[in-house]
Amino acid sequence: MTKTTSPGAMMTAEIAQQAAVWRRIADAIDNDIARAAASAKKYCPRFVLLTARGTSDHAALYAKYLIEIRLGLPCGLVSPSTMTAYSSKPELKDVLMLSISQSGGSPDLVRSLEVARSSGALTIAVTNKDDSPLALAAHEHVDVLAGPERAVAATKSYTAELLTLHLLLSAVSDLGDAPIDRLCDAGEQLINNDAEVELLAQRYRFASRFVTTARGYSYATARESALKLMETCYVSAQAFSGADLLHGPLAMIDQHVPVLMTASAGIGGAAMRQVTARLAGRHADVFCVGNTEAVAAAKSGIVLPPGIPEELSPLLEIIPFQQLALHTALARGEDPDAPRGLSKVTETL
Amino acid sequence: MTKTTSPGAMMTAEIAQQAAVWRRIADAIDNDIARAAASAKKYCPRFVLLTARGTSDHAALYAKYLIEIRLGLPCGLVSPSTMTAYSSKPELKDVLMLSISQSGGSPDLVRSLEVARSSGALTIAVTNKDDSPLALAAHEHVDVLAGPERAVAATKSYTAELLTLHLLLSAVSDLGDAPIDRLCDAGEQLINNDAEVELLAQRYRFASRFVTTARGYSYATARESALKLMETCYVSAQAFSGADLLHGPLAMIDQHVPVLMTASAGIGGAAMRQVTARLAGRHADVFCVGNTEAVAAAKSGIVLPPGIPEELSPLLEIIPFQQLALHTALARGEDPDAPRGLSKVTETL
Repeated sequence: MTKTTSPGAMMTAEIAQQAAVWRRIADAIDNDIARAAASAKKYCPRFVLLTARGTSDHAALYAKYLIEIRLGLPCGLVSPSTMTAYSSKPELKDVLMLSISQSGGSPDLVRSLEVARSSGALTIAVTNKDDSPLALAAHEHVDVLAGPERAVAATKSYTAELLTLHLLLSAVSDLGDAPIDRLCDAGEQLINNDAEVELLAQRYRFASRFVTTARGYSYATARESALKLMETCYVSAQAFSGADLLHGPLAMIDQHVPVLMTASAGIGGAAMRQVTARLAGRHADVFCVGNTEAVAAAKSGIVLPPGIPEELSPLLEIIPFQQLALHTALARGEDPDAPRGLSKVTETL
Repeated sequence: MTKTTSPGAMMTAEIAQQAAVWRRIADAIDNDIARAAASAKKYCPRFVLLTARGTSDHAALYAKYLIEIRLGLPCGLVSPSTMTAYSSKPELKDVLMLSISQSGGSPDLVRSLEVARSSGALTIAVTNKDDSPLALAAHEHVDVLAGPERAVAATKSYTAELLTLHLLLSAVSDLGDAPIDRLCDAGEQLINNDAEVELLAQRYRFASRFVTTARGYSYATARESALKLMETCYVSAQAFSGADLLHGPLAMIDQHVPVLMTASAGIGGAAMRQVTARLAGRHADVFCVGNTEAVAAAKSGIVLPPGIPEELSPLLEIIPFQQLALHTALARGEDPDAPRGLSKVTETL
């Protein structure tokens, strides 16, 4: 593909489209989402398996929390190699398998889904491509409607997957409507806050190691923020659940390793207080995206617009981190639209 | 605790005890392991949930591959916060929950197990402490018989957990005997190879960022190696499954980020060939623990003694990485027995 735009132009544009994508998903809820939810309700799953790679794996992690907490079902992230390389044929009666992929093209995900389907699972593919191999292999396909995504570092397809999974799982368990208008307004507000994040990003121009951390629903944000930084800035960026961080990795934290924390309103954010105290003990330099109190306790940060339920907060939280990755990469003279060594569709076996 | 020994003396001693611990576990198989396996067989689980933190979480990851591949059961690693902070009460009939912890003392693991038990699951605790709260809360307790572990960085309790889980799950599914004598001999051989690893460790004296990678059963080795390095050397060390590495993080690899690879004999090692090729394209500097061919293709490495089934290989693979973490820490003037910011028992809520 010939590239005629300036570095980061595609990623910038795709970050900015997110609230509009969310409106599109909510407007189309009576189509794919309603059909797949009806199919899942009829099936009455007793266990849910999720399968995904890369950014979509973080959307799967978000879904895992929704499934464990709101649906009350046991749930696992599949290691795809067990069904591909190791040819396992598990017994999957009463299992719902959700397979999530922007491109719907990685052979290992397609193969895992085929094995699951032939082993008795109900299979639902969540992708950004209607005619992808994954979409065609599944019982049901839900299009995340993000539109073509051209920057290699996924942004709008990630939050499109989050919202699609939220609406789908809410429909399966009759959990009522999400406050879409408020969510989209809050998203626009964060998108428009780009210049503030650009300034804060300068601080990380020469950092080579980051730690990201959060708990609960927001753990997905920590994982996805770390991946954005690795992909676009070529730094080491390690994500830990706040609890796991205290079981060993805390030793590596000192004032020279920036910590990027997410602390939403609600239970996950409150559970981070224990972590904040321990990080202070290690003299950590913390950038926080979250509630007013958590941001005030950090070195710097971005306060999230209030009034959004905790379980929708990950859609918002990731925006400042996407902007941070973009601007840190640009400050380093890199092109986040086309990172070295990567292509948009990754095929693993 | 007053410390009178030289830096790393406890970790050195505990690494060296591993083969003896394995013999002890195999000799005692008719006790805890047989009883817990009989209980699990009678229960006939349809799903398995695993819960753990830190090093034990890597033993859980190893067990996940055994369960998916050899037992053919769907399986998930529980996010403990969903049952603690978020108070979810999932429906867990037909679910076997395995909770793994060296100390058996972290309140979030105890609470998750209690919730699982009251929700209908069969609960088995795998710990190194017979009278720990986790052991007492579970239907069944299996003692991993590692003996007191005093170094903060867990070594012998990790491989004791791996072997215990292997024997337990093999007994549940009547998979026949493991070649314990050959395994212990191979373990001794690697333990005695300490001086060679000490020499290789000098190379990493000033490295601050590592990537570890493997696939299949050995993915647990990559995760645990990374944690040992973080805990003892305070470096960034990120573990990726070989497949996930290609979905984004590959961009951060260049000749300045050492890659620590595990490539066992068998399917997992063979699946790493795709990764080796892509790493070469990024001019990665690779240290490999694995089969002869994989080590020959790397910059340096340790060849594993042959003749050990792939699913037992993680017990061996971790030994050179434990030695590497120990000697890299000592070369940096750190004391791996007592890392900064950590204590032996971590309590998270």
